[in-house]
Order: sequence, then structure tokens, then C-alpha cells
Amino acid sequence: MPLSRQQALEVIRRLTQLGSLDLLSRRLRPRSAEDTPPPPDVPRPMDWSADARDQRVEFVEEMGVPIPHLTGRAGHPDPASLQGSIEQYIGMTQIPTGLIGPIRVNGVHAHGDYYVPLATTEGTLVASYHRGARLVSRAGGVSALVTAEQVQRAPGFVMPNLADAAVFAAWATSNFERFRDIASTRTHHGRLLDLHAHLEGDHVYLIFSFHTGDAAGQNMVTLCTEAICEAILELTPVTPRAWFLEANMSGDKKATVLSFLATRGRHVVTEVTLPRRLVERGLHTTPEKMAQYWVMSFVGGSATGSIGVSGHVANGIAALFAACGQDIASVTESSLGITRLECTSAGDLYCALTLPNLMVGTVGGGTRMATANECLRIMRCDGSREGKEQSAKFAEICAAVCLAGEISIVGSLCAGDFAAAHRRLGRPR
Amino acid sequence: MPLSRQQALEVIRRLTQLGSLDLLSRRLRPRSAEDTPPPPDVPRPMDWSADARDQRVEFVEEMGVPIPHLTGRAGHPDPASLQGSIEQYIGMTQIPTGLIGPIRVNGVHAHGDYYVPLATTEGTLVASYHRGARLVSRAGGVSALVTAEQVQRAPGFVMPNLADAAVFAAWATSNFERFRDIASTRTHHGRLLDLHAHLEGDHVYLIFSFHTGDAAGQNMVTLCTEAICEAILELTPVTPRAWFLEANMSGDKKATVLSFLATRGRHVVTEVTLPRRLVERGLHTTPEKMAQYWVMSFVGGSATGSIGVSGHVANGIAALFAACGQDIASVTESSLGITRLECTSAGDLYCALTLPNLMVGTVGGGTRMATANECLRIMRCDGSREGKEQSAKFAEICAAVCLAGEISIVGSLCAGDFAAAHRRLGRPR
Amino acid sequence: MPLSRQQALEVIRRLTQLGSLDLLSRRLRPRSAEDTPPPPDVPRPMDWSADARDQRVEFVEEMGVPIPHLTGRAGHPDPASLQGSIEQYIGMTQIPTGLIGPIRVNGVHAHGDYYVPLATTEGTLVASYHRGARLVSRAGGVSALVTAEQVQRAPGFVMPNLADAAVFAAWATSNFERFRDIASTRTHHGRLLDLHAHLEGDHVYLIFSFHTGDAAGQNMVTLCTEAICEAILELTPVTPRAWFLEANMSGDKKATVLSFLATRGRHVVTEVTLPRRLVERGLHTTPEKMAQYWVMSFVGGSATGSIGVSGHVANGIAALFAACGQDIASVTESSLGITRLECTSAGDLYCALTLPNLMVGTVGGGTRMATANECLRIMRCDGSREGKEQSAKFAEICAAVCLAGEISIVGSLCAGDFAAAHRRLGRPR
Amino acid sequence: MPLSRQQALEVIRRLTQLGSLDLLSRRLRPRSAEDTPPPPDVPRPMDWSADARDQRVEFVEEMGVPIPHLTGRAGHPDPASLQGSIEQYIGMTQIPTGLIGPIRVNGVHAHGDYYVPLATTEGTLVASYHRGARLVSRAGGVSALVTAEQVQRAPGFVMPNLADAAVFAAWATSNFERFRDIASTRTHHGRLLDLHAHLEGDHVYLIFSFHTGDAAGQNMVTLCTEAICEAILELTPVTPRAWFLEANMSGDKKATVLSFLATRGRHVVTEVTLPRRLVERGLHTTPEKMAQYWVMSFVGGSATGSIGVSGHVANGIAALFAACGQDIASVTESSLGITRLECTSAGDLYCALTLPNLMVGTVGGGTRMATANECLRIMRCDGSREGKEQSAKFAEICAAVCLAGEISIVGSLCAGDFAAAHRRLGRPR
Repeated sequence: MPLSRQQALEVIRRLTQLGSLDLLSRRLRPRSAEDTPPPPDVPRPMDWSADARDQRVEFVEEMGVPIPHLTGRAGHPDPASLQGSIEQYIGMTQIPTGLIGPIRVNGVHAHGDYYVPLATTEGTLVASYHRGARLVSRAGGVSALVTAEQVQRAPGFVMPNLADAAVFAAWATSNFERFRDIASTRTHHGRLLDLHAHLEGDHVYLIFSFHTGDAAGQNMVTLCTEAICEAILELTPVTPRAWFLEANMSGDKKATVLSFLATRGRHVVTEVTLPRRLVERGLHTTPEKMAQYWVMSFVGGSATGSIGVSGHVANGIAALFAACGQDIASVTESSLGITRLECTSAGDLYCALTLPNLMVGTVGGGTRMATANECLRIMRCDGSREGKEQSAKFAEICAAVCLAGEISIVGSLCAGDFAAAHRRLGRPR
Repeated sequence: MPLSRQQALEVIRRLTQLGSLDLLSRRLRPRSAEDTPPPPDVPRPMDWSADARDQRVEFVEEMGVPIPHLTGRAGHPDPASLQGSIEQYIGMTQIPTGLIGPIRVNGVHAHGDYYVPLATTEGTLVASYHRGARLVSRAGGVSALVTAEQVQRAPGFVMPNLADAAVFAAWATSNFERFRDIASTRTHHGRLLDLHAHLEGDHVYLIFSFHTGDAAGQNMVTLCTEAICEAILELTPVTPRAWFLEANMSGDKKATVLSFLATRGRHVVTEVTLPRRLVERGLHTTPEKMAQYWVMSFVGGSATGSIGVSGHVANGIAALFAACGQDIASVTESSLGITRLECTSAGDLYCALTLPNLMVGTVGGGTRMATANECLRIMRCDGSREGKEQSAKFAEICAAVCLAGEISIVGSLCAGDFAAAHRRLGRPR
Repeated sequence: MPLSRQQALEVIRRLTQLGSLDLLSRRLRPRSAEDTPPPPDVPRPMDWSADARDQRVEFVEEMGVPIPHLTGRAGHPDPASLQGSIEQYIGMTQIPTGLIGPIRVNGVHAHGDYYVPLATTEGTLVASYHRGARLVSRAGGVSALVTAEQVQRAPGFVMPNLADAAVFAAWATSNFERFRDIASTRTHHGRLLDLHAHLEGDHVYLIFSFHTGDAAGQNMVTLCTEAICEAILELTPVTPRAWFLEANMSGDKKATVLSFLATRGRHVVTEVTLPRRLVERGLHTTPEKMAQYWVMSFVGGSATGSIGVSGHVANGIAALFAACGQDIASVTESSLGITRLECTSAGDLYCALTLPNLMVGTVGGGTRMATANECLRIMRCDGSREGKEQSAKFAEICAAVCLAGEISIVGSLCAGDFAAAHRRLGRPR
Repeated sequence: MPLSRQQALEVIRRLTQLGSLDLLSRRLRPRSAEDTPPPPDVPRPMDWSADARDQRVEFVEEMGVPIPHLTGRAGHPDPASLQGSIEQYIGMTQIPTGLIGPIRVNGVHAHGDYYVPLATTEGTLVASYHRGARLVSRAGGVSALVTAEQVQRAPGFVMPNLADAAVFAAWATSNFERFRDIASTRTHHGRLLDLHAHLEGDHVYLIFSFHTGDAAGQNMVTLCTEAICEAILELTPVTPRAWFLEANMSGDKKATVLSFLATRGRHVVTEVTLPRRLVERGLHTTPEKMAQYWVMSFVGGSATGSIGVSGHVANGIAALFAACGQDIASVTESSLGITRLECTSAGDLYCALTLPNLMVGTVGGGTRMATANECLRIMRCDGSREGKEQSAKFAEICAAVCLAGEISIVGSLCAGDFAAAHRRLGRPR
């Protein structure tokens, strides 16, 4: 973000396929526990016994989601099935996975109460996100909205000189529709959305932005852009001296401000307002102190040149990505975000989190792994379904979970129990 | 970086415990395959059969590293053993893991030929890093040097006004030795190295930097800083109106320029020079073209506000961190880096990579997991050994692997086979 | 930059009013001194006598540009004439002004040989830019191209909640044409070009981009946006709880990456190739050494978190802005740039400079001052002329001068005479 | 900032030469108008007549500061006297200059009520800063404290390889005292304070930080570093392949985060608390609304990748620098700052501004110009005085003025009269 007018109109176009804007905006409103009682909590949260584990597994499987691979009941896959995902395979790295929830999400795509798997080895993390999830749910849930959805590939062209580079850039920009048609021959699910051109001396960068359907889409945009470049080289009025399929303007797995401003993946905006009593009882602090903390930490982040300023979004993103078969290297751009906490004039706590670069998918890539598929199914976010945008749904859940985690960590820093929690949960017994 | 004089003197002090600087610098020089023949390559790299997998497993186990957990021969652990690492446990997420190497590393701490496990679901990644590892090894190996080693915790204090804040900051700075003693009562392995103070109106941020031994150390610095803060609150000449154990100036799991400039974790500098014929035969391109690409991609990164500019360091870091029980959320800061490629006057390719924030550990945290321990043992980097700095060794290997990966991806972008490789290896058969 | 497709099409539309792209691109090509001899150099450059000063003044006035105010022959203006430019007036600050040139510019708008006034108190600066100007002119001149031209104003709206904020943002985006019509009632010369929307929780930022004709345009965009906001408040389907005419997303006088990526003012791209013998004779160094310096300094800039990476662009911008009545506070964003130097395969020196945010105008603001008007007239860039884009012309000259200055400073750092020059010219005799 | 412990101890050392910390901190406290009545306001602020101008001039001259050059009563200087400040001189650029004040500053160095000259052509600017100055003075004045004071020069060395580079960096770091002695042979007023080393492959950057006395000091650090480099080249155990006096890690006239974190020039921290009634009567808005604006604008700045986040600091810095003979190109780094506004629990408005990079001097450079000298004398900041730190005093005044300007602009954005003010004052009658 900010969204360009074209991006915004594209967002509106996509959203209004699902209903009128007024109707959709109503989906974002809080739903109280009184009117819509939530399902039960994950059982026996502070119990590390095998028995408690079994009870939680049973809890999941009774929802209709068998998890033989997570539990180790199923064996390792045939290595041949891993072609396309790994080379020189020797075995499976294991990461312990816990379950939090339910968390109530009031999104356009994710609308309900969700249990969420988190894979991590940082003791305290799961407990803290669970605490946050309970709190936001009792406050009516997290409003969440995916806006822009796009992934870039940015080939670079070395031209003979600036004059030719300018002609080339103008020509390329004028041929957008042609490139869109070419891209459509390489993908059923993706679509070329936009093209930006950057002229720097005799260098031209073309930045192609694609909607990638329910896939995260890095491979899709590579292959589509390859096809476009072949056409460019054939048709261009001026011949490049050299060209490269990617010239580092796509923000791919990078911490760049471009990716913050322009969206890489999915841009999600969330909010929740916590009534004062929930803050006091659930976090043992006050909205005023949390707002004071936010000011101090936001200024601290800004003074240290942080791209986006948040608490520990990276923890939630990493745990979600590991569990759900997302590309872990994309934690780099996906964990950039802006958290905002303010004390309202009524004395409650307003909380918002924006994640501009959620590189998520529910098909392809690591989602083909057996445990990842089980994790996605727990959230009803697996695969691609007619008329449903599964990836957008998953993105809204991710952002809601991260907002819950932001609230929980700031609460513990304000109540002064951050270190105590890590002493209790972050070290082996 | 840049290192302060005090940091530099600390680095020199630590290094010269291992030998004279001249002696150590000699360890950084390339060792040719003629003089020191490398061990054999990982067997049957492009074969996804169970038989090939078994042969690779046997290859590892014959080195003396049994891997029953990676291979699934051992069952899941007792949930009780996971206390301190996870809450609300339901099972184990699995991530396929491949083996590359050997890669020759000429570091102060890592000095030899290493096989390296990488956990990923991005097809092509392992093959590409393997290609890079072979190339740099044939060029005599990667020179690698850990310089600064430190982890921060940054409490914040809200003072009554600027005058009091200034007095408080001056008082705290003058009591560094006292704080160092307090920290030493909470840890055997860590040590308070430095203290920075940031005054912003009535806010004071104190940034404590610790050496954390062979642990990544996030918990250690939290608990030590808690003890220091308790002493501060007891002894301070002016009482804060509020305080927080962390006020967002530590760069913890953030993409900040502070963490780039100041080192969070370990700062590693690497280089290798590839003879022209290796570039031509191994990468099917030329040093000139790779240098030309570097200019275009570095300017592209800079123009998009990238913190550090590299190729795909995040891929290598994420795959290493997942396999080796590192904190995946720290991919955020650990994958920031600067890659440099230049054509030398002799027509060879000079390659350097600096990773300023490698948050790695070989004890504690996720390294307690069974598969992580197996992966660390494959690299002879597990645990903590008398007189050896295992984490520094691991850091040097990580950076060398990432440099190999940088060379491989730039090579494929220059040779024009980047998309083809992903078409071949990045999709299921 | 990068330019969006809409921006690019707007650039193409504007440019092709002046001629075909092929025709225009031909204007960017170097013109050799043999084919088109340049006018004479500024007389007696290293002479500080009153006599030499008089001769230079005569040189200017013989071109048809009387400069009574610069020379002090004319008295101070009537204070009443300064209303609109200053309050609480006590007198005139004086800044010494030198003349360089000619510099040959091969731009679309600026096409010719120009003498350029620079106001500064940094001894050496004028001499160094003059040296650069002579060199680039002997190499055929600087190619220069204005691409994007726009100035932003970014009002902010506090909405009741995210749901309303989303509806508001969608509504605003859909009413662009209406806002454009409203803007046109407040200005004859400006035009609303684009609208971006940024949604962050219950906050909506609307970023309006205007073409501001030959004015720098900060006031114009303020007044137009005020009118648009009045309409928004009257027509909006959801009422903001508060709103502000500017909410810090316009990059106004700020060092932001947004302004680097999005263009604030005019985006100019330039290049020149210096034959090896000119580098050797004129700068006493080699293309190879200058390219080597560029690599080291560019990496240095990147590692220190520089927005854009250049040598001393701020010196040229500040001296031009002070002399020519531009807003000196805009040096902040206008001096952000990217310089690139490379050694070509033929052994010459390729040089490019991109300035993405030149906030310049030739009418209004400080250009009304008598000395500023004289300075602009020396460059034939004063006022607004039918069918001519004077500001774009001025922007191309500014960027060309800055490129000349980049070459000169890098040359002196490579030849090792940087300190000596400052010892000779930077201290009073 | 953050200050290293060594920097902090240096600050404490310098400050305590002036008195105990407690004594100094008492100087920062507000002084009410009741206890210490302020001197009269600048006369007839909204009157552009020659008569009103004359009255203001008389007002200044009756303080004992004749201003013949500002008023044009004195002629232009002999060009020969400008050697060292300009080459190819043709005349004097004039910038209209207004006077604001008094502004009460409660600083360690600047302690009193000051009238401040501002040179600008942006109508409204002087009036707005004047309004802010009156407000902060009525609130007891601006607390202001210079902490770090240093200017960098950063030579770069290309070494044969990483091993040699490491030895070189270690050697250089260990020879700090020697370099300090060498520097002291080139300057009476400056002093080498610190040395940082940055190792990147075979490149070594050495960053020398100097205290430059009352000079801004760019030339001083250049000449001292030249002497140090000559010694390095003579004594180094390993010979560089090439070296450059500056390799772009000093932040010189650049918008870099390094310069934000590390201080370039003087780092000044300020604050003032405005009672609610002053906000309501003086700015026609409320502390709550100004705090709300601050949140929105700070998040807006952060989301656009701003280095530091402020309102219009660049306006104040540019106007002060132009009037007072500072290097206008240094507006780039000097205008980076962080503004913070919060509503206190008592309902008042807390305001803080930090400027980390004020590149100011009261001797040398442009301060030799006649009008600049008059402007500095109006603030009693001219020259260098025994036992007084004139530049630190000037820096504290600059920051106080900028804080006043921040309050005024935010007030007008909150009261909704920002555009109206520019309509009234920003356009010619």
C-alpha cells in the first residue's frame, strides 16, 4: 500500500463478486459471544502429558480432520512423491506443533471461529498466542480484510543507451495487453494485473504484477514472465545488450520498502477493540499503559530504521508458515507489518495490525506435504474451492492470529510478566 | 557493522585466544583441491528413488552420525520432554530435508569440508545450493570470518521529563560495570558486553548487548536484563513513571537498519574468487556478465529501499534454520545481507557476502529437537565443546553456504536457465 | 519510480505532444564539439579580482540578461512587494553566487549549451562543478529525460472502524473523476493525475497526485486538496470522526522511500559516456578506478541505509535551489538520487544519475525574487512560456549539472586530490 | 543515537566541565513568564510596510546588533574577500529574511530568550514559526540538550583479500591513539573521538569521528583524515590495492539511517509541555486532537519509509541555515528528526523533538559572510568564545525553533486552518 486507483478498483471488482460493499462491510463487524457462542477451547492447554496430547488430537479428529501424519501414525512418504519439492532427500525435519483457539475472525473470506496450528520450538509462543486469541474472541473477534493480492517478477534489460532505454520502456508499457494474453497461455489460475517500468540510465526494469489464484505463486510468475520476455525479445523495436529474468525489484524474500508500499502477496488490514475490563482481567494492565507502550515502542522502531513497526509478528508468521507448508524464506517480507494500539475516548483499547506482504498459498509448493495439508484442513483452508478464495481466507486468519499475538506480548510487557513467562515456559523442566 | 573500536578490540581479544592474527588470517586462505582433496560428493543427487535416499542415509551414517529421527526409524518423543519448547502440543510438522556438499570452508572456526542439511519444500533450492557448494569448493573454498557476536535487549523507561531523563541516562551509563556483575549472576555462559543509551524527550532506551556463548540467547538476554532492571529501579536517583523490559530498539526479529549496522547475533564476512573457467564451465556464463548483473540487481535493490542487497540469502537461511533447530522467526533479521560480485582485472569472478545478523545457537532452544540435533551433528556443530566455539563455527558454515547459493542463482539468471531449472525441479512430476 | 503503467502512459502522452518518440529519443543523443562547437567558457575562472568579476558580469549581460540585483546595482525591493513570500521582514540574506559552464544538455526540454549559476559558501564547489560541466560537454553532453511529473497532498481520515474505513476508501477511489473536476475549479495550470488510498485499521489516507504546470506547486496542491476534502465531507456515505489536510504520506520535505519510489516533483534520468582519454586527461585517473570506487561507495551507502546512493548531489541541488528561488527545504527530498559509474567493455566510463524528486518551478514561490529571476533567465528557464515546459527544462539542466558534479568529485577521490582541492579553494586566503 | 557508552561518557565529561549534572539538569526546567518576564515581541508582525520593516530593523539594532548588510545599507564585499567561499563569482543571491521571537530556550548552552532570523521565500513560514515560538515561551520555554557532537570522514581501502583486510582492520583499530595524535597536528580546535571499522569482503571502511569545535567541520575532518591516511599507508602491515579518502560511510549530506543512529553534527533533544488552555486559545484545537494527529502522521511516515518522522522540520532548518551561513546542502541530514506529541494524563500536550544530525558551526564556512554574521549576532551565537560552546548553543536554539514550528503546523492541521493560512500568506497580494 498505498493502493493505486487501479489496484483499488481491482480489489473492489473482486470483492463485489461476493456481494455488495455494504454487505461485505457488515461481515467485518464484531459478533459478541452472547449472540454467537464460540466453540470450546483447545483442551488442557497447560498439560504436557501424553494423555492431554491425545485428548487434543481426539478433539481435532472429532472435527472431521484426521491427522495421522502430525501424530506420526502414518509413515514417511515415498521419496519419489517429493520430486518437485526437494532434491537429495535424506529425511524429514520435525518441528513440534501446538494448537490454539478458537479465534473469532470477522473477515470477508474468513468468517467464523478457527483453531490454528503453530509450529515452533520457542516455548511460551503458543501459550501467548492462545491467550491473545481468547481475548480478541471475547471482544467479538478480529475484523480482517484482504485488499491487494499480487506477486511480482521484475526482469531487467541492459539497453545500448538512455535514448533506446526510454523507447524500449515506452514500447513495453504500451504493450501491456499483449503481455497479459501471453501470460494467460502459461497459467489457468493466474493473471497479469499490472506493469511498472523503471528507467535508470541505460537500464530498464519491468515489474510485472500477477494475481496468482490460490497459489503463493513464485513459480507461476517466473514461468509467465519468461514467456513474456521471450515475446519482448522477439518484438522489441530496440534490442537489449543483455537481459535477466529477475533484476531485484520484485521484493522476493527481501526486506524492502517497495514490498511494503506495493504489496507482495496479500495485503491484510485488521482491527479489534478490547473493552477496558478485558484488558484489566485478561492482561493485568490498562489500555492507557498499553497505548503508552505503543508510543514508546513505535518511536523506538522508527528510530532504528525498522521497515514497518510491530511487536513480534515474525513469531506468528514463522509458526504459521512452518506448520502450513508456506515458504519459510518468505517470512522475510511477510513479517513486515504495522501494529497500532490506542486508548479510545471511552477508555477501551483500539488495536490494529496491517500485514502488507503475506506470501501465502493453499495449493502447490509446501502445501502438498502431508502435515501441512492436515494443518490447513484444521483451519478449513486447504486446496482451492470453486467460488471460494482459500488463500485470501488463510491470509485473513494469519493476520488475525498475528494481531492476537501483538496484543498478548504488549500486555505482558506492560504487566511486567514477560520475563516470568519465558522463565516458566521457555526452558526445559 | 561498522564495528565500534570497543567491539573490534573485543573481537581481536576473542580471536587471539585462538592464535596470533597472522596465524588466523592464514586459516582464511583458499586450499586447492590438488593439495587437499575433498571428500566425495553426496551420492546420486538427481535420483528421487527410495534406493538413492537409502544410499544417502547410509553415506551420512557411515560418517558416524546416525539419523534415526530424520529417517523416521525412531518414534515421536514423549510430549513431556517438549515442555519448554511448545505448549498445547498435537504433533510434529514434517519438512523434507536434503543434503548438499561437501562445501569447503576456510574459516577461523569452521575449517574443513562440510555436508549441510537443508529443509525446504521449494524444489530447485537444494540442487542450486549444491551446485554452488561444488563450485566454491573447486575454487579452494569460502573464506569466512565471524567478527562481532552479540544479542541485545532494550528496556525503555518513561521519565518525568527531559531533565530527569538526561540524569537517568547519564547515571545508567556510568553504572555499566555494576550491571555486568548483575548479569553474571544469571548466566554462566553469557556476558554483558556493552550498553547504549537513547534519549528521546522524556523517554530513555537502554540497549544492553550480551555475548551469549553457544546459545542463540534470546531468553538469556531477557532474564539478565530483567535482573539489571530490578537493580536499576532500586538504585536509580530518579524514578521512572513506567518501564518496559523491551521497547523495540533491540532489532529482535525485525528488519531494521539498526540490526544491520550494529550486529544482532553473529556478523560473518565471506569471500571466494572463482577462476574464469569455473564460471564458464560450471555456470555457463562469464564473470563479466555476472558482474554486470550484480550492478543492475544491486541498484535495483537500493532503489526499492532494500535493507542490505542480496540474491536469495533468505532461502539458504530458512532452509538451514528449519533443519538445524534455529528460531525460524529470526529469518527476518538473519537473512539481511550484502552480496558483491566483481570481475577482477585478471578476468576472474570475485564474490563476497556479509551476513551481519546471524541469530544462531548450537545449544538450547530448538537445537534440543531430535532431528535438529542430527542435522547439527552432520556438520559437527552440535552442542558446546570446551575450547571450541560451536556457534561461531556454525555461523561461518551458514554464511559460506549462502555465498554458494548467491553464486548459483546469479549464474542461472545470467545463463538464462533460471526458469528452466524451476520448470524441471520446482513442480511435481 | 518505478512508473505505474498509468504514469508511463501519461508521460508518453505528454512527450508525444512534442513529437514522435523516435524524434524525441534522437534529441537525447550526444552532439560532438566538432559538429556543434560550444560557446566560450565562463571567463577567468580562477581569478577573484573585481576586474575578473566585472568581466564575468559583462559576459552574462552581453547574452542579453541584465543582472542588476545579483550585482547589487539595484536596491532592495519595496517590502510590500514581498507579501506572500515572507513575514516580519528585516532584510536580505546574501549568498555568493558563481557561474559555471557551458554545460551541454541533450534533453527533450533542455537542448543546448547552458551557463548555470550556483549559490554557495563552500569553496571548491563551483570549481568542481565547472570542471565536471566542461568534461561532460566535451564528451558530447548529458542526455537527460524528465519522466514522471507530479506533486502529492495526502489528507487523512479517522473513521469509526475498519468496516467504515473500507467503504469510505472504496467510495473515494470510485469518485476520482469528480475530484479531478473539483480540482480544476481551483487551478488553471494544475491537474489531478491520480489517487492512491491507504487503509490502516480505521485510518484512511488518500494520496492525491497533481501535475502542477510550471510551478513547484506545494500551495496549489494544498488548495486543490482542500476543495476536494470539502466535497468529500459533504458527499461521503460514512462520516469521518476527524480529518486532516495532510497526514504525512506525501513525502513533503521528507527523506522517504515513498518519495523515491513514487516521484515527488520531477523524475529525471541522465547519462553520459566519457571516453577514456577524457577521464585520464581531465580527471587524472582511469575509468577502471572510478568504477572500482563506485562499487565501494555504493555498497557503503547501502550498508548505511542510504535512501538512494550518490556522491554529493545535495551540493549541486542546494546551490541551484538557493540561486534560482526554489524552496530550499525541498533539498531534503530533491537531493535523493542514484549515481552509477561503470567501465564499458571498450574501456570508457559510463555515467548515469537519476533524480526522482526534483521539486522545481519556474513560476511562483521564490522565483518571484529579483535575483532568482535573473538566475533563471541566465539559463533561459524563467517563467512559463506557451508550448514550452520551462520547469521540465530546468529539471533536466539541474540533473545534468548534478551528474557533472558526481563525475568531478569521484574523479578527485580517485586521483587523490580531493583534500588538496579543499585546502586550496575551501579556506580563506 | 543511540549513544555508545564511550560517546555517553564523553558527553558527560564535556557537560560536567560546565557544572554538576544536577545543576545542568536544573537549567533544562521551564521558567514561567511570571517569574521571568520575556522581552517584547518582534514589532508589527503582520505589517509589510517599509515603515514597519524600519521599526523592526531599529528594534534589532537597539539590541546592539547593527545590520547594515541585511538591510542593504552596506555595499557588496570585495570579491577578493570571497576566495575560499566561492569561485567564478558574479554576485549575491538575495533571500528575504524575517525575524521571529522571542523564543525561550532552557538549554545547557542556550539559556534565555532569543530572536531568530529566518530566510525563506515560503510565505506563511515565518508567521507559523513565530506563533509556535510565542506559545512555547508562554509555556515556560523549550528544554534543549545537546548530547553527542561529532563529524565523520570515512576512507575506504581495497585490500588484496579478506584475510589481509581483517589484519588491516585489526591493525588500524589498535592504532587509534596514534591516529588521534596525528589528527591533532592538523587542527587546534578539533579532536579525533572515535574510530569504527567496517569489513566487507576485501574492502575495509574506517570511519573517523571528530569533535570539530565551533566549526561545522567538514573541511577539518577531511584534512585530518588525509593526514591519518598518509600515516596508514606508510605504516600498514598490509598494502591496500587502492584507497579513497571518503567511501560513503560518513553520511555526508545524505539521508542515511547511519547518520540518524550515529549522530552527524550535533544531536539535540528537546521538549515542552503546553497547558491545555494554551493549546485551545493559541491553536484553536485540543491536546487530544493533536495527539490523534500525531499517531496518524507518525504511522503515515513510518509506512512510507521515512527516515525519522516529523512535520516540517526541513522548513525551519532550511530557513535557519540560509540565514546563518550554514551549509545548505546539509539540510539533507540535518532535517531528519523525530517529533512526538502526546496528551498527558492531566490533559496537557507533551511535545518532544529530537534532531540527531545538526551540522552547524559558528566559525568558518558561510558564517564569514556579512549577513550570516549579523544573523548569528542577533542570536548571540557568532564566533567562538572562551569557555562558551557557541555551536552547541546555536544547535539548541535551532532545535527549539523547530519544535515550535512542529507545534504550530500540527495545530493548524488540527484546527483546519492550514490551507487558509497559505491562502492568506502564501500568495502575493
